[in-house]
Amino acid sequence: MYDTIIVGGGAAGMTAAIYAARKKMEVLVLEHEAGGQTALQPEIWNYPGYLDVEGFKLMQNFRKQATDYGAEIKNFKIAKISSKEVEDNHKIFVLENDKGEEIEGRSVIIASGAKPRRLGVPGEMELDNKGVTYCATCDAPLFKDKEVAVVGAGNTGLDAAMQLTKYASNIYVLVKGDVIKGDQVTYEKLKKEGKVEFIFNTETKEIKGDNFVNSLVYKDTTSGEEKEIAVLGVFVSIGSIPNSDFVKGFCELNQFGNIVIDPRTNATSKPGVFAAGDVTDVLERQTVVAAGEGAKASLQCYKWLQSR
Amino acid sequence: MYDTIIVGGGAAGMTAAIYAARKKMEVLVLEHEAGGQTALQPEIWNYPGYLDVEGFKLMQNFRKQATDYGAEIKNFKIAKISSKEVEDNHKIFVLENDKGEEIEGRSVIIASGAKPRRLGVPGEMELDNKGVTYCATCDAPLFKDKEVAVVGAGNTGLDAAMQLTKYASNIYVLVKGDVIKGDQVTYEKLKKEGKVEFIFNTETKEIKGDNFVNSLVYKDTTSGEEKEIAVLGVFVSIGSIPNSDFVKGFCELNQFGNIVIDPRTNATSKPGVFAAGDVTDVLERQTVVAAGEGAKASLQCYKWLQSR
Repeated sequence: MYDTIIVGGGAAGMTAAIYAARKKMEVLVLEHEAGGQTALQPEIWNYPGYLDVEGFKLMQNFRKQATDYGAEIKNFKIAKISSKEVEDNHKIFVLENDKGEEIEGRSVIIASGAKPRRLGVPGEMELDNKGVTYCATCDAPLFKDKEVAVVGAGNTGLDAAMQLTKYASNIYVLVKGDVIKGDQVTYEKLKKEGKVEFIFNTETKEIKGDNFVNSLVYKDTTSGEEKEIAVLGVFVSIGSIPNSDFVKGFCELNQFGNIVIDPRTNATSKPGVFAAGDVTDVLERQTVVAAGEGAKASLQCYKWLQSR
Repeated sequence: MYDTIIVGGGAAGMTAAIYAARKKMEVLVLEHEAGGQTALQPEIWNYPGYLDVEGFKLMQNFRKQATDYGAEIKNFKIAKISSKEVEDNHKIFVLENDKGEEIEGRSVIIASGAKPRRLGVPGEMELDNKGVTYCATCDAPLFKDKEVAVVGAGNTGLDAAMQLTKYASNIYVLVKGDVIKGDQVTYEKLKKEGKVEFIFNTETKEIKGDNFVNSLVYKDTTSGEEKEIAVLGVFVSIGSIPNSDFVKGFCELNQFGNIVIDPRTNATSKPGVFAAGDVTDVLERQTVVAAGEGAKASLQCYKWLQSR
């Protein structure tokens, strides 16, 4: 029986583990994709304290810190979470994988992360981090004086385009239909920028390049014609998918499937279950934010256990 | 005229600066005590990504990252903040030091931190970080199998004692009066622990030691007698003082003087003014939490400026 079980071994989960282990809690981290989204980034410039670090290396350091203090880590793809009463008013939590294996804990911290929503077109996976990116806050500075495309014109897409105006030479924004879903204020500003071109009624068909992106092919859905634009970067900005299937019906999710938390305490709607990082409704998807949230969740979880 | 002025050069302020500068905002950091509380710690074990790092060195890295991306830093002890209308519905903020020097910005991020409340007794300053500490979450693991004293029996003190039960051999908790102000549940648990001794009606008089703490002298306020206990650590747990004097009457503070923020957006009660870290009502006072909060505040500040 663990004091707390942390679901997810990314920045939020490992930071929660560091804090829990230092409090001498019996802590188990269930990881499925080690290191989370951070570990997939070849270089990270905005994690404070590191001028430039490989995402995988950074997450190895998080992990070593957690295990040095005594956190256990187990490869375990969670499929289901439930609670059961064990004594008067005391519940414990049962976490199950798809093989039916069960693990029990007195509390849970969910830090299972999110995945960027992908276009699902040829070239996208092959050129991931080679010009294809899902985070303008992270990668806009890489495209100084370069031509780029932003796919998506919701707020994420418009925000990506706005950030790119400070770096890129020319920005195409590919809009699915004939309406901009993002904020009109931002749209108006972008139109005045001069170097942003909105292309309406598009469907992205392919991203091309050898070692690095050099063009994007889209279909003009009005004429049916396929067109190719020369770009060195593609900012896919069509949202993200939280890894929260296993908590559906267990604790409250918002309309996007993110776990609703009390933003001060990281408590979910289920007492004893805390959540942190990209799986929650926190507004920013950044390694340092996830780490801070993991620390908060862990310290509140500790207090919750102490108060029982 | 800066896009944003960041008050404070600690973990929250420098992280806000990194994020703002990467968005090519014109950003100025006003610092008074460079590096904040983090820089005063000889060693930090719980900042994720660093197994063990000198606080000053860590904050130098934060600082270099911010300036590498173009943030300006100025030594400036803020005395006053106000706003003035410059055009239809647009306000700017004016920050003033005690020499009457003024700096203007379109937005402000307050990250001026907090200071631990000190006992003000002989030996306390001299033995700071040499057995005297203000953070159990940070330093409890250093006192394995040692005798320690906790001064204060509010929730912070009881929490410190609870954490120490996992490490220290014996824990004295010095209570000011004859009542425990912290949670009764925790108090009851501590009494059952066996190695925690509560000493009521005390007033700490001195902390003694040469290179490191070796005893604490207190007055028994009932008998008037002075007593000395042999301890190698003193956890001063009597609260903290936010550096928020200059915002009194400008934006909302809570009863402890902490700036009240919307915990999701880091917005204060004043539009265009954001806040992050120990000066706010955030629950946890940790470097990684302050850093995460700084990133959140900065990204929301950027969005706020874009929406105008």
